[in-house]
Amino acid sequence: MTVFAKILAGELPCHKLYEDELVFAFLDIAPLSPGHALVIPKEPAERLDQLSDESAAAIGRVLPRLCRAVMRATGTEDYNILQNNGAPAHQAVFHVHFHIIPKPSAERGLGVVWPISHLEDGAALAEKIRAEL
Amino acid sequence: MTVFAKILAGELPCHKLYEDELVFAFLDIAPLSPGHALVIPKEPAERLDQLSDESAAAIGRVLPRLCRAVMRATGTEDYNILQNNGAPAHQAVFHVHFHIIPKPSAERGLGVVWPISHLEDGAALAEKIRAEL
Repeated sequence: MTVFAKILAGELPCHKLYEDELVFAFLDIAPLSPGHALVIPKEPAERLDQLSDESAAAIGRVLPRLCRAVMRATGTEDYNILQNNGAPAHQAVFHVHFHIIPKPSAERGLGVVWPISHLEDGAALAEKIRAEL
Repeated sequence: MTVFAKILAGELPCHKLYEDELVFAFLDIAPLSPGHALVIPKEPAERLDQLSDESAAAIGRVLPRLCRAVMRATGTEDYNILQNNGAPAHQAVFHVHFHIIPKPSAERGLGVVWPISHLEDGAALAEKIRAEL
């Protein structure tokens, strides 16, 4: 049972921000900046690709509203949404979670490393992805 | 007019992956890893907090399906979803976009810097955020 499942079950405390039939949101206890929040489905999916369309849509729907509230309450304008899948991609709790991370300054919030390359064989790759949809 | 608005208008080419009434997806031309894709609303919102609930829900709904297709087509298991708001938070094109970034190795894909801190005054902050919902 993940820590998020325990929070959903009321077995661990949290600073709750929002709840509806499918979605739960609360403050991250190890924030990258003040207001760093987590938005999770009640559905116990480990990774986004395993989440139902309904739960994914419900999270998407409430993200703008939660972002507005976090930014107003913290007086921050800029922010990142991050959702990690798999330990090599920095996932630490194996229950889907979207981070809302205010970016109040260069030092606080999410830092990103952007090892850019150039798209090669885009047409063939796009066709391969479309075939998997 | 942003480059994404031009892509939506058919004025710039792209390697299209998916389209529905509210959502459009295509390959990033400067990928962090093979399969790096962008998912955007047709609605011309600059930032997620300005996007309608309907468009945000439509993006959320299709993300799991797009992630499955990108990962199958590229043979990758791990990945990150990233959505940036504001230039200080690394937003470069001012039309909402969600990155799907496969993480095939430590060197490729998204790198993150995680300046962790501890949650202080969580109860008061959560109350302040809830009041803004």
